[in-house]
Amino acid sequence: MTHKIAILGASGYTGAELVRLIATHPTMEIAALAANSKAGQSMAQVFPHLRHLELPDLVTIEEIDFGGIDLCFCALPHATSQAVIRDLPKDLKIVDLSADFRLEDPEQYARWYGGEHAALECQAEAVYGLTEFYRDRIRTARLVAGTGCNAATGQYALRPLIAAGVIDLDEIIIDLKTGVSGAGRSLKENLLHAELSEGAHAYAAGGTHRHLAEFDQEFSKIAGRPVRVQFTPHLLPANRGIIATVYVKGEAEKVHATLEAAYADEPFLVTLPFGQHPSTRHIRGSNFCHVGVVGDRMEGRAVVIAALDNLTKGSSGQAIQNANLMLGIDETEGLMLAPVFP
Amino acid sequence: MTHKIAILGASGYTGAELVRLIATHPTMEIAALAANSKAGQSMAQVFPHLRHLELPDLVTIEEIDFGGIDLCFCALPHATSQAVIRDLPKDLKIVDLSADFRLEDPEQYARWYGGEHAALECQAEAVYGLTEFYRDRIRTARLVAGTGCNAATGQYALRPLIAAGVIDLDEIIIDLKTGVSGAGRSLKENLLHAELSEGAHAYAAGGTHRHLAEFDQEFSKIAGRPVRVQFTPHLLPANRGIIATVYVKGEAEKVHATLEAAYADEPFLVTLPFGQHPSTRHIRGSNFCHVGVVGDRMEGRAVVIAALDNLTKGSSGQAIQNANLMLGIDETEGLMLAPVFP
Amino acid sequence: MTHKIAILGASGYTGAELVRLIATHPTMEIAALAANSKAGQSMAQVFPHLRHLELPDLVTIEEIDFGGIDLCFCALPHATSQAVIRDLPKDLKIVDLSADFRLEDPEQYARWYGGEHAALECQAEAVYGLTEFYRDRIRTARLVAGTGCNAATGQYALRPLIAAGVIDLDEIIIDLKTGVSGAGRSLKENLLHAELSEGAHAYAAGGTHRHLAEFDQEFSKIAGRPVRVQFTPHLLPANRGIIATVYVKGEAEKVHATLEAAYADEPFLVTLPFGQHPSTRHIRGSNFCHVGVVGDRMEGRAVVIAALDNLTKGSSGQAIQNANLMLGIDETEGLMLAPVFP
Amino acid sequence: MTHKIAILGASGYTGAELVRLIATHPTMEIAALAANSKAGQSMAQVFPHLRHLELPDLVTIEEIDFGGIDLCFCALPHATSQAVIRDLPKDLKIVDLSADFRLEDPEQYARWYGGEHAALECQAEAVYGLTEFYRDRIRTARLVAGTGCNAATGQYALRPLIAAGVIDLDEIIIDLKTGVSGAGRSLKENLLHAELSEGAHAYAAGGTHRHLAEFDQEFSKIAGRPVRVQFTPHLLPANRGIIATVYVKGEAEKVHATLEAAYADEPFLVTLPFGQHPSTRHIRGSNFCHVGVVGDRMEGRAVVIAALDNLTKGSSGQAIQNANLMLGIDETEGLMLAPVFP
Repeated sequence: MTHKIAILGASGYTGAELVRLIATHPTMEIAALAANSKAGQSMAQVFPHLRHLELPDLVTIEEIDFGGIDLCFCALPHATSQAVIRDLPKDLKIVDLSADFRLEDPEQYARWYGGEHAALECQAEAVYGLTEFYRDRIRTARLVAGTGCNAATGQYALRPLIAAGVIDLDEIIIDLKTGVSGAGRSLKENLLHAELSEGAHAYAAGGTHRHLAEFDQEFSKIAGRPVRVQFTPHLLPANRGIIATVYVKGEAEKVHATLEAAYADEPFLVTLPFGQHPSTRHIRGSNFCHVGVVGDRMEGRAVVIAALDNLTKGSSGQAIQNANLMLGIDETEGLMLAPVFP
Repeated sequence: MTHKIAILGASGYTGAELVRLIATHPTMEIAALAANSKAGQSMAQVFPHLRHLELPDLVTIEEIDFGGIDLCFCALPHATSQAVIRDLPKDLKIVDLSADFRLEDPEQYARWYGGEHAALECQAEAVYGLTEFYRDRIRTARLVAGTGCNAATGQYALRPLIAAGVIDLDEIIIDLKTGVSGAGRSLKENLLHAELSEGAHAYAAGGTHRHLAEFDQEFSKIAGRPVRVQFTPHLLPANRGIIATVYVKGEAEKVHATLEAAYADEPFLVTLPFGQHPSTRHIRGSNFCHVGVVGDRMEGRAVVIAALDNLTKGSSGQAIQNANLMLGIDETEGLMLAPVFP
Repeated sequence: MTHKIAILGASGYTGAELVRLIATHPTMEIAALAANSKAGQSMAQVFPHLRHLELPDLVTIEEIDFGGIDLCFCALPHATSQAVIRDLPKDLKIVDLSADFRLEDPEQYARWYGGEHAALECQAEAVYGLTEFYRDRIRTARLVAGTGCNAATGQYALRPLIAAGVIDLDEIIIDLKTGVSGAGRSLKENLLHAELSEGAHAYAAGGTHRHLAEFDQEFSKIAGRPVRVQFTPHLLPANRGIIATVYVKGEAEKVHATLEAAYADEPFLVTLPFGQHPSTRHIRGSNFCHVGVVGDRMEGRAVVIAALDNLTKGSSGQAIQNANLMLGIDETEGLMLAPVFP
Repeated sequence: MTHKIAILGASGYTGAELVRLIATHPTMEIAALAANSKAGQSMAQVFPHLRHLELPDLVTIEEIDFGGIDLCFCALPHATSQAVIRDLPKDLKIVDLSADFRLEDPEQYARWYGGEHAALECQAEAVYGLTEFYRDRIRTARLVAGTGCNAATGQYALRPLIAAGVIDLDEIIIDLKTGVSGAGRSLKENLLHAELSEGAHAYAAGGTHRHLAEFDQEFSKIAGRPVRVQFTPHLLPANRGIIATVYVKGEAEKVHATLEAAYADEPFLVTLPFGQHPSTRHIRGSNFCHVGVVGDRMEGRAVVIAALDNLTKGSSGQAIQNANLMLGIDETEGLMLAPVFP
């Protein structure tokens, strides 16, 4: 059986990554690709690396007949997404990759994203898309809100620890380093090769990055009380990959055992042996997340390090994993591609 | 039906690339992995990006029982390969990725590789592994000699042109740029990140690169008379990808039409529209080769540009393509992975 | 004695490079910095790497009092430059880094740059800024036109050979690879890190790059008859550095001897021993140009390889070298900085 | 007046960086270059980027006549350095760039470096080379021990804060990211371009990196009681540059004011305006260190970020700064080179 897929926002990096992954997905078939600014062009013009595929040309969203579509990926920019999704057919299965439906509390949305939400009724039914922790609800969801890529990385390092009560909830620091593709195909001076290569810097330091809203929401929910973490993202001279170095207070071996137990049956979450830690190189282009734990020389402190590919496990791979569940097919279908190294 | 595969030399980059590709190949199964220097280790230790796979541990070649093996990939260093293959069972299907069996003429081998060949009887039955041009012989071959990665790139740009007589055979210049993974996982000062990144240089300039032996052999065979080309490879600060800029004398549109006709039915060779030319970024991690033709402002001259991934279409992907033929399965099986961009 | 310097267009990369070099120039002092789009900002805001310097804030060109200025560098975009320079004081010494005054023939200008020239009277007095070959005229010039960075590289490889008649003038191919900073601080999709890193591609192939106009003009002038070369530039995943691989027909040792003799007394042009060739890594951040010659296995053919830093010897370093001459100070003043490696 | 300089260990990156800086130093002159493994070669062979300089050929240490040497830089590997320095003339001024003389306590040396110290009498007179904090003692020192590059970065972020008592001494976390040149020109698999580029990973996590010994020694000395910090270094796909993200508990504006006051008169230490933070790109190739402070959303917490070039301010630039003091010349002599960007 073939599932007909539409992708809205197909001219961005997450759109291209969806197409890349679906290209070898055994039961998904791309039926429509929309990108309003590039409507009329072929996908080969916009992304020459996909020119070997037989794909429909890019159209505007309005031109799509959603009648024949089984599931729609929405890879539009933040804020645009909510208005578009509000007007899509009410029975259409949707996986949204934007930030628009991640926050349950409209006040938090307004605070972090600076404006009223345009589709609160859709927000009400949206399920947070961190697959491993919302699997059952995702299976029956109509609208799944893909997580932030940084937010996913930090949560894979921390959720089981918060749930198990093995770390101090008031002393969590997430120092994160991310490749540049997470910023999208946008024309900004700081994303130019000449500006970005051969160096590194922090951004949104001091607790101002929007993915903190997801950490706050999710960690507080797990803990049953407000949890606030420190979070400093840095931009790396690399295209793909996020590595989060998370400083916690807790017994290191217990921290490791907790993660290992939590992820024992997960197909994409790999807990490394105690004392080992991951590299972004070893998950590039794949849907895997590697998590490692190291004990610090200072007793009662540990470092948890998680790495994933922001375009795959951090967004488009996660989206397909969720879509697989929503379509009733095997969760790993099309996602077992091995990482590309070197 | 499952085909049992052995890989000799599994601790190098082409070995790792074979495993990556076979990981999602529907009918190949890895039964044995050999790497004498790392025997006893797990593949996850040597290549952590493959840790999600259930793979046999690395052993020495001697430890492998070839009785149950359907096909053996030999990804050993040049010169080592011939001695090993000489001693393998005489009915074992083998795809060799080294340079050892590429040259038909023992004298040419001795001249370019500086020594006597240790397995001339194997050389006699070896088939040159440029799939698209040796397909029929490869189907029935026992031993296939994978091509040089640079040699493959140059040949995809030139073979149909030489065969069709549309270019001047005495005026061919191949200016080639390659990523560093082609040099293998070897500890050389000039391969260090600090030495290689942020710059470029030529190497083996002036007609001394060994892949010239393949150009000489193949182009002369096609032309029915000696053909010598100029060839200057350059090292790029990138891991994967080769781009060959080939200067020819001939009518540009005829050059383009010749390539387009030759590759019209090829699953992995893509001729771009006239005037367009390829980028290594658009074939990275895939088995595709993109070829473009541009006419020069000087009448009667054209530039042919070909790009492929040295680890995939240039070696391990090509090897699997050939193995598919040798095993009687579809040539494209397991190789339709889309390029990874960005 | 201190020379008061103004820089127009100080917010681009060549502007920043001028400031970097002048920062340790013993007799130049920056008196004014203009950048219309960023007027009112400090240089530290626009280029934080220059924040340790005491520099005037950015102003508009109109705000500068040129009365106290000894020499003005004009690092404005092509086409903008001519209109600005036309209206500057007629006795002001100017080094222009744009393409506006490089071509002597207005028809050629119109053909390559697509429009009427707005300051032909300035063009008439402009001296082409390839220091080593126009030294005497530059000394007394009021307006010097900095060369294209690619054009400089190719000319350093070829001018003495054309002058000496040691190569075939109808068979010259320049295959050039350049870092990305030559494209400036401009917001273009193909200059993004995610698009450019980890790969390579040709651009302006087939004889369409504007620097060909400089090759045509200069090489024809030297030869006393029209000379046309083939020229294919490629974009490298590196910020600085150009390497030109030049294919010529001529006796290789004679080619080498000709270059060695021509550059024997040049402070910045280094001819490598015969058979050696340069790397962009070894001139990065400096005003040196390294030139090497290799004989090809095909008799009567040679490969000349030249490397320089596009922002230094290819533009801003060259500009200061010319300014030194115009101000009557030592040509090498402030320019003996060693390359930065690694 | 000219100061005659010898460099031992001139074939490594810090050796090359010393030569680069001395090349434009007004009063230093290189009289001898030693590199035992490459003795007999010219510096141009070992480091082609220095070929424009007139330099003595490389010799063995034994071949140097130290009688005419005013100051000797020792850029030898750890452990080698102590045995060599022990046997140098007792009145020779020495700046050592290795780890051998950084730790005052022989027990700590043995614990962190795994062996007996071979020159404890030299250790006794060695002065720790963090210029800004040991200036007076360095002026009269015979032997100065250059600091670790990571250790320097962390100390610039923290020393004034510990001295002023404005942060909690038991809650300091240094998350550091460093370019690869700090690992030297050594043939290790993980330093290959194909392994290192396009990714990031932590190393020596959990409090095992040797530069912790310097943090322990120095911070405890300032505080007058034991201070232990957490420290996780990461390897970046970049050649030069260290950025340390330091998490402290203290009032952010007070933290900023303390650093700003401490560094107000320092020629190379730049405190950015409150809320701004540095990038490694903006200090590359220079002797500057940029320090920024951001307040966290969690009250009473701040993030201090410091960036410097490991080869310059982190080792060879620091060494020359110290040598300037020891020779009685201006501390900034030869070191005011502006950073190289892009």
